[in-house]
Amino acid sequence: MPNSPAVRILSTMEDVWDAYREDLQEVEYQIRQRIHSEVPLINTVAMQILSSGGKRIRPLLLILCARLFGYPSKESLILGSLIEYIHTATLLHDDVLDEADLRRGKQTARQLWGNHASILVGDYLYSQAMHQIAAFHNHGFNEVLADACRKMAEGEVLQLCANHRSDITEPEYLQIIEYKTATLIAAACKIGAIIGGASPSEQAALYRFGMNLGMAFQLTDDLLDYEADGSRLGKPLGQDIRQGMITLPLLHLLKTGSPQDQQRIRTYLAAGSIGDFEMADIMAMLRQYDSLTYVLDRSREYVDAAQRVLDLIPVCSAKHSLAIVACFMIQRDQ
Amino acid sequence: MPNSPAVRILSTMEDVWDAYREDLQEVEYQIRQRIHSEVPLINTVAMQILSSGGKRIRPLLLILCARLFGYPSKESLILGSLIEYIHTATLLHDDVLDEADLRRGKQTARQLWGNHASILVGDYLYSQAMHQIAAFHNHGFNEVLADACRKMAEGEVLQLCANHRSDITEPEYLQIIEYKTATLIAAACKIGAIIGGASPSEQAALYRFGMNLGMAFQLTDDLLDYEADGSRLGKPLGQDIRQGMITLPLLHLLKTGSPQDQQRIRTYLAAGSIGDFEMADIMAMLRQYDSLTYVLDRSREYVDAAQRVLDLIPVCSAKHSLAIVACFMIQRDQ
Repeated sequence: MPNSPAVRILSTMEDVWDAYREDLQEVEYQIRQRIHSEVPLINTVAMQILSSGGKRIRPLLLILCARLFGYPSKESLILGSLIEYIHTATLLHDDVLDEADLRRGKQTARQLWGNHASILVGDYLYSQAMHQIAAFHNHGFNEVLADACRKMAEGEVLQLCANHRSDITEPEYLQIIEYKTATLIAAACKIGAIIGGASPSEQAALYRFGMNLGMAFQLTDDLLDYEADGSRLGKPLGQDIRQGMITLPLLHLLKTGSPQDQQRIRTYLAAGSIGDFEMADIMAMLRQYDSLTYVLDRSREYVDAAQRVLDLIPVCSAKHSLAIVACFMIQRDQ
Repeated sequence: MPNSPAVRILSTMEDVWDAYREDLQEVEYQIRQRIHSEVPLINTVAMQILSSGGKRIRPLLLILCARLFGYPSKESLILGSLIEYIHTATLLHDDVLDEADLRRGKQTARQLWGNHASILVGDYLYSQAMHQIAAFHNHGFNEVLADACRKMAEGEVLQLCANHRSDITEPEYLQIIEYKTATLIAAACKIGAIIGGASPSEQAALYRFGMNLGMAFQLTDDLLDYEADGSRLGKPLGQDIRQGMITLPLLHLLKTGSPQDQQRIRTYLAAGSIGDFEMADIMAMLRQYDSLTYVLDRSREYVDAAQRVLDLIPVCSAKHSLAIVACFMIQRDQ
């Protein structure tokens, strides 16, 4: 088995993707296979967004967490595809809520087929995932996934309430991203652990691992919004703040900046439209007050916490891969 | 027990509501009790729509189907409240999709809190219901409910594709209403049967009963849209056609009307806006061609089919109540 992940020494994220390529190809197959709505428009819309180049980080985590405890199983690949349905459902609803025109550089579903189709196909993907999960007859799966869905909706509403508010606190912000992003990643890890045969305490540990990873993932996303150029991320620089979303870099700036600088940012936010001039000024202040470094440091703390959870798990190739994935959370550039 | 449904002879729908008033009060209590989001806006939006005067026909059906086979149980009341969450989630999403300003004569949630909150609180109610259903550790519940949610989304997409199309066939139309309305009512009946301890064939029979009832329910809804005055239904006359929704009365007219009349309707539909003059003309044609009578007859056939399913069930007070509910499907005026 020259290509088996068990013998190859992996050192980069590319190595990990390579090592689990076959598993992930099967996930892709399951994703295509399991949509099967009788309604052609649902298949079209769902497949457009499902095949638009997402990295499948959630299925990968699920597969790796399953392999920590057990042999490779087809079930983990099917469950990986269902986690991706849930994630995709949130993207479809998000794009409607954010009035987004582009996702990964391509037209969004709502641009191609309208808001109605996007909301409804999102509803379909949620319930198709819940239906297929139910067929496993595993209470843990149903509970973990429904809990994640509920928290994601709560996180989105919290974010809606926080929109345009420059006085939200860091703990409030962290709760939003925990709910809207980290819980689904935590759920993917826990479901992997369950199917792999982990004990309840191991399941709880992997849930914590995923939660920390998810926090780092979202904080990196917030950073990329201020760092990436439009072509790489497939969306314009500073899109969050232009939509009134105040993420951790800006919260740091609003706490540490001089009173005059804080006031200037509040004036920009209150005006409701951030032009290129205002954006350049904000970027300069973010650098001046080391706000991006602050967020990167916070993100690193979450990765460290995730690695400490892994310390509880016996050495194996899947554990090694999970450690690489954890580091990747703060190194990724898209 | 002078007020027990087992001894009182019930003959009208009001009698049935009266007989199960205590059960339905407990359903109301469970509905309020089980929202408990940490996010205040979710509780506010959810409770506004949940307490806006819905009749709780789905919880009633679930309770009655449970009582066909077993003793009254608290579980059936909790499950009734969860079915109502799912139904309410669809209303929240529907109002956004239909751009509705009024529901039962009151401002819609999207008018009060915006489209974003309506979509997200809808998502929350779906997943809260699925989460609490999962806690019953009954695979049947999870499967029936997730299947219903999936079919409802499919039905809504089918309806979206059929919008403004005057060439859809009656079978196509019937599939839309089966999916978008009847499956949840069928699911309520089947879940009641399961919790009551029914055999698989009895569960399947009650599912068919609910499906037939649901079809009659939606056809009556379609009729009411052409019959009710605005104040009673809390929405304007002919709202469906004004939104491009071609329901069975109009489909009948488009099949049986003279070529000139058919052409006139198609011209109205193509113009995209139905004014008072056009509405009065359509109403006159619906009467001339007996289209409303045709739909009422079809509706009656579904009620008859539902009653025939009941024939398989031994006589008991719950069965008698279900027969009254079935008749009510085509007698209701709101």
